[in-house]
Amino acid sequence: VRRAPAVAGLDVLQTPALVLDLPVLEENLHRTARWAAGLGLALRPHAKTHKTTEIGLLQRRAGAVGLTIATVSEGWAFTGSELDDVLVAYSLWVDRDRGGRLRALAERAVVTVCVDSVEGAQALARHTAGAVQVLVEVDSGHHRTGVPPRGAAEVAVAAARAGLRVRGVLTFPGHGYGPGAAARAADLESRALAEAASALRGAGIEVDVLSGGSTPTLAHSDPRVLTEVRPGVYALNDAQQLELGTCTPDQIALTALATVVSRRDDAYVLDAGSKVLGADRPAWTTGYGRLLDRLDDRVVALSEHHATVRPAPGAPLPALGERLRVVPNHVCAAVNLSDVLVVADGEQVLGRWGVAARGANT
Amino acid sequence: VRRAPAVAGLDVLQTPALVLDLPVLEENLHRTARWAAGLGLALRPHAKTHKTTEIGLLQRRAGAVGLTIATVSEGWAFTGSELDDVLVAYSLWVDRDRGGRLRALAERAVVTVCVDSVEGAQALARHTAGAVQVLVEVDSGHHRTGVPPRGAAEVAVAAARAGLRVRGVLTFPGHGYGPGAAARAADLESRALAEAASALRGAGIEVDVLSGGSTPTLAHSDPRVLTEVRPGVYALNDAQQLELGTCTPDQIALTALATVVSRRDDAYVLDAGSKVLGADRPAWTTGYGRLLDRLDDRVVALSEHHATVRPAPGAPLPALGERLRVVPNHVCAAVNLSDVLVVADGEQVLGRWGVAARGANT
Repeated sequence: VRRAPAVAGLDVLQTPALVLDLPVLEENLHRTARWAAGLGLALRPHAKTHKTTEIGLLQRRAGAVGLTIATVSEGWAFTGSELDDVLVAYSLWVDRDRGGRLRALAERAVVTVCVDSVEGAQALARHTAGAVQVLVEVDSGHHRTGVPPRGAAEVAVAAARAGLRVRGVLTFPGHGYGPGAAARAADLESRALAEAASALRGAGIEVDVLSGGSTPTLAHSDPRVLTEVRPGVYALNDAQQLELGTCTPDQIALTALATVVSRRDDAYVLDAGSKVLGADRPAWTTGYGRLLDRLDDRVVALSEHHATVRPAPGAPLPALGERLRVVPNHVCAAVNLSDVLVVADGEQVLGRWGVAARGANT
Repeated sequence: VRRAPAVAGLDVLQTPALVLDLPVLEENLHRTARWAAGLGLALRPHAKTHKTTEIGLLQRRAGAVGLTIATVSEGWAFTGSELDDVLVAYSLWVDRDRGGRLRALAERAVVTVCVDSVEGAQALARHTAGAVQVLVEVDSGHHRTGVPPRGAAEVAVAAARAGLRVRGVLTFPGHGYGPGAAARAADLESRALAEAASALRGAGIEVDVLSGGSTPTLAHSDPRVLTEVRPGVYALNDAQQLELGTCTPDQIALTALATVVSRRDDAYVLDAGSKVLGADRPAWTTGYGRLLDRLDDRVVALSEHHATVRPAPGAPLPALGERLRVVPNHVCAAVNLSDVLVVADGEQVLGRWGVAARGANT
């Protein structure tokens, strides 16, 4: 990446501020791109994690076949010019308005959408007039959306009859988020995709795409079954990935710079709360995020503008006014709270990137 | 309020969308203003809940003495013209930049700031040159920020010596958030404020303001001790208040309009996830929010763009494409995720208000 010269240090920032370390980001993108290429897997990163056009472009240039998005409105930040292929990894309910927006998006890029019901496929076909292609979403055990693998053919046939081009099957192995859960979730993912693809082929439908993957399950993806993986968090990483063992501290690309605003004997308080970090707090995590410079401290409470931190046993309290880097539990939530990311190289500020798809939920 | 004519129904909205019911909001504001006036308590609503200038103005016109804010940057949306008095209910760490912004804010309105340490008071005085006045923040049992009541005089004396005008004491009874916890938290609040005020007076400092209050504890506020209350959520209400018994369903002024996108035998899925509702989920809540039209259903899982709902026993599933109103668990988090609120009167759209202080964290 060509870079603006660094003209300021992080000390110019008012806290809290989201800081993106560019060299760490680039290394994350290239490491995963090399891994996918080595296995012959297409890499289609989920852009909902960063919502930032510049990062989408870096991913494409690092070898991604296209990007994944979660909503139609996110698409405007991730189509056009080099960004010529997006997958909406969501079984949309498409009415006239959403159909119109999908058709407009399809004039800027190849657009693929998920379906998980006969009615959903028919509504999609009716309102997009064949402008988009589809993947059938399969439930591989996460039990959110998606049809059971044995139900995939019925939806695919309905979609094809309605005039949609069916490209294959997709699943989200969200049940891989948990200590020790990734390998089993990835195994269920391959089985579900293989079974669904086989059902589609049995119904006379060609299957080119078997799409899976998430950051925790990525290393367990089966390249004999999958054709494509869609990790999102890998670009930035977060405290959940750190605690799942999916990344190391030096692979954390995004932190919230925060100031110590209050202290007492057994705790200190930072000015980064849930309105900066997000409130995600799965039961298996150690707290509401981690401190990159004090990894053994624990974020024991989080309110809108405060993080209460218990120092590791024996560790001294930081001084009032000291600045620390907080790693959010869920980086997708943190990025979506901020209008800009401060782009830095270590302690040097390189510039700012707008979070172009922030709040793009429709 | 003078209103634009309603020219459209809610059907013009793409989901998810935050919808503010104006008559419900107005009734909430007036009911609480009447209650405070009846007890002789000054009402200083916390604007962090709505972050919307128009709502701040309605609160002021309904009799609020001023507004409460959480950050300096929120202040720009809530000062100027009629909005001439703000309290930053936060023990800020003030450096040169934050001091400069506070001085600029103090040119638009009377500005009061909290302090909870001698060093914090000295830094505030150094960088604001007496442009703001202060309240000493006291910990009444929430154990986040604030000094113990017995430590309040030391901070107040240091603030006064540093040249700041000390107006009194403040506490946040955040330990009142929980079933059956409000009365005890309000009792601890009055005791802590009374003890701290007495300590200040003993040190020769005049005390005009004893500020407390939060939406759950409001009804238990002791008007013999408190001079001022700072509820925030009461304006809009949310699923937490509903489940605490602090509001009724017809007092819920803000909901996320959402569409049923997927169904299976025992659950349905809406297109409102944590990027619209926020991820707040205290252990004592029944789930990740409530459905205003299906109060006995339970929101059992929430991801970024999906809410998974289990219908009440025997209740039929809603149809694919049906639109339902979701009540967020924590309305302050939901509003902070959206750039606009759709202002409505029942099913009629009146207009849109910008969330002027969205993301204003510094």
